[in-house]
Amino acid sequence: MSALGVTAPQGFSAAATGAGLKASGSPGIAVVVNEGPEFAAAAVFTRNKVFAAPVKVSRAAVAAGELKAVVFNSGNANACTGEQGLHDAQIMQQLTAEGVGAEPTQVAVCSTGIIGDLLPMEKVESGIAAVVTQLGDHGADAADAIRTTDTIAKEVLVKGDGWTVGGMGKGAGMMAPSLATMLVCLTTDAKVNAQALQTALERANSTTFNTLDIDGSTSTNDTVIAMASGASGVSPDQDELDAAVHEACAQLAGMMQSDAEGVTKRVSITVEGAADDEQALNAARTIGRDSLVKTAMFGSDPNWGRVLAAVGMADAEMDADNISVTFNGHTVCEYSTGAPGARDVDLSGADIAVVVDLGTGGEGRATVRTTDLSHAYVEINSAYTS
Amino acid sequence: MSALGVTAPQGFSAAATGAGLKASGSPGIAVVVNEGPEFAAAAVFTRNKVFAAPVKVSRAAVAAGELKAVVFNSGNANACTGEQGLHDAQIMQQLTAEGVGAEPTQVAVCSTGIIGDLLPMEKVESGIAAVVTQLGDHGADAADAIRTTDTIAKEVLVKGDGWTVGGMGKGAGMMAPSLATMLVCLTTDAKVNAQALQTALERANSTTFNTLDIDGSTSTNDTVIAMASGASGVSPDQDELDAAVHEACAQLAGMMQSDAEGVTKRVSITVEGAADDEQALNAARTIGRDSLVKTAMFGSDPNWGRVLAAVGMADAEMDADNISVTFNGHTVCEYSTGAPGARDVDLSGADIAVVVDLGTGGEGRATVRTTDLSHAYVEINSAYTS
Repeated sequence: MSALGVTAPQGFSAAATGAGLKASGSPGIAVVVNEGPEFAAAAVFTRNKVFAAPVKVSRAAVAAGELKAVVFNSGNANACTGEQGLHDAQIMQQLTAEGVGAEPTQVAVCSTGIIGDLLPMEKVESGIAAVVTQLGDHGADAADAIRTTDTIAKEVLVKGDGWTVGGMGKGAGMMAPSLATMLVCLTTDAKVNAQALQTALERANSTTFNTLDIDGSTSTNDTVIAMASGASGVSPDQDELDAAVHEACAQLAGMMQSDAEGVTKRVSITVEGAADDEQALNAARTIGRDSLVKTAMFGSDPNWGRVLAAVGMADAEMDADNISVTFNGHTVCEYSTGAPGARDVDLSGADIAVVVDLGTGGEGRATVRTTDLSHAYVEINSAYTS
Repeated sequence: MSALGVTAPQGFSAAATGAGLKASGSPGIAVVVNEGPEFAAAAVFTRNKVFAAPVKVSRAAVAAGELKAVVFNSGNANACTGEQGLHDAQIMQQLTAEGVGAEPTQVAVCSTGIIGDLLPMEKVESGIAAVVTQLGDHGADAADAIRTTDTIAKEVLVKGDGWTVGGMGKGAGMMAPSLATMLVCLTTDAKVNAQALQTALERANSTTFNTLDIDGSTSTNDTVIAMASGASGVSPDQDELDAAVHEACAQLAGMMQSDAEGVTKRVSITVEGAADDEQALNAARTIGRDSLVKTAMFGSDPNWGRVLAAVGMADAEMDADNISVTFNGHTVCEYSTGAPGARDVDLSGADIAVVVDLGTGGEGRATVRTTDLSHAYVEINSAYTS
């Protein structure tokens, strides 16, 4: 077993190979297989109305609560590819199913990369054919294979009492990732049913991937899948499962934030004093998506006025004369006006914590994690297809 | 009379002077005076819940439908400045009123610049004192004085039949300007009442400043004010007034788009085939605010997949399998999949027109004007206060 990643829990194997989909020549096809004895599965998907063929295929597959494998490709999102794209995703599902001894409906498909081009199916097919003969303790290879603009592979392991949760991920957000679609695969040898796993995944997602917002854009392909093999023989209760899945998701989300396209700062935006948590989340997202706030962060500029200008447009109740803001614990704004020394707060470090109180006296609270808006972000994203 | 700008129509004077508010040393105080014989006025303001003291003062002043003058300062927004800020805005109003022979309630106040610092009132007061003694045909000086990050002064003149509409503006948007707050002052010698002027201004605003969306951020200070002197003695009907005011606003909005911070491309996003105009506008705004679409435009990259990924998150009904997209008239996507030659469309010019059909068969249609997201945008906005 690996020390980390999807093959660290008992009952899972993986493999990856180059499929010629990525210019870099690094592997572009990966398969993660649940060897059982149980096959419970859960997933959350993009909320984008324009979603990719593999999302359609995977939604249907996971609906019955059981998966034996997930097949991944990087380099091409198979999104906006019409009937042919759907057919291609089904071929990926079918070939993987045949290769690992499963029904097609027990296989999910995840793709990431450029939108709008048809998959080079000859390469994909030969890649899958090769991968299914090499299954083993190769979680690290799989985590490497699914990277697109990710600079590092992302793997986790969280230990329970006699059971573990492993995982891998790529990309930079769930609700609002960069073009680098977010794909996550969690594996656990806990003995849990699909419903418990789905509950744990949704709870974890809401405060981890779902509040990671790099650039306000949302992929057509975002997918988080969890599979449980039951191979440990241990049945954690829901609280224990929730805690471990949350920890795995939080660690992966943190890695994505640190590795987001062009990031030089990790920025957390917490909104308090809102009428309710949903309004707090609206306000935190509005601030976290504001280009002027994000460029100020890139410049280490404690320009709190931009935070107020941004939050004033949020769909949230606020007392516009009683908003307060702290940067890294230093009060920079009270009663919606500047605090002494506000312009001198040092934001030169890599982590910036912004806390905004909307002044309603309410208990609503939420945190969104984002990044700065840097030259490198513009550079990476201005020349993606060309 | 000037050939252009706020003093081109009959019955208006203006002056501007340096007030030491801007590091560049260029003038930072301007006053535009309606000499009458009539004093009808209209205005639209920012929708930001966090709005600046001068907005509060001006809203109250214009409520009665009559203004004799507007005083402007650049370099400091007098926003998030609490009770002191409100007091300072009232002082500006009062000094200007005294200087031009008006009641304080007949004077509007417009400020633009950094948020959160108190105005240097000594400099502001001496600036106003100087300006009111220099009133004349100095619209061009006023247009220059209100600039912040604007690289050029922005003036217009639209001719009616025996009457004219002049105007000046600065900044980069209304609903969603860059930090450079949008301030606009229109003047006309038409003989029209405040209600007709307000109607014309609101109609023009909805399709000009209100659909100019540079970076999704919205200022605390945005203000568009119109004053009518009646000095021509000509009373245009509402249609004629609407047309002239619309033309003046459209020209100023076009100048703002071209001069937006860091712009290298002017991008228009038109959404058609929506259920109604409001949904079309939602969709156009969502695309126009998407960082990945905007960086692709900067890179002259015909990456239509990002347009689909962006529009899929819009609050608008769409047929996700029947979306079509054109770039500069070339079809790049039909039935939500790529069209032949889509990757080869040349977007290297300075103007890019994106047209998206949501495929609902509806008649809803809207256009939003935006720009690319460039290195220069990041540079300008990452070092604004420091």
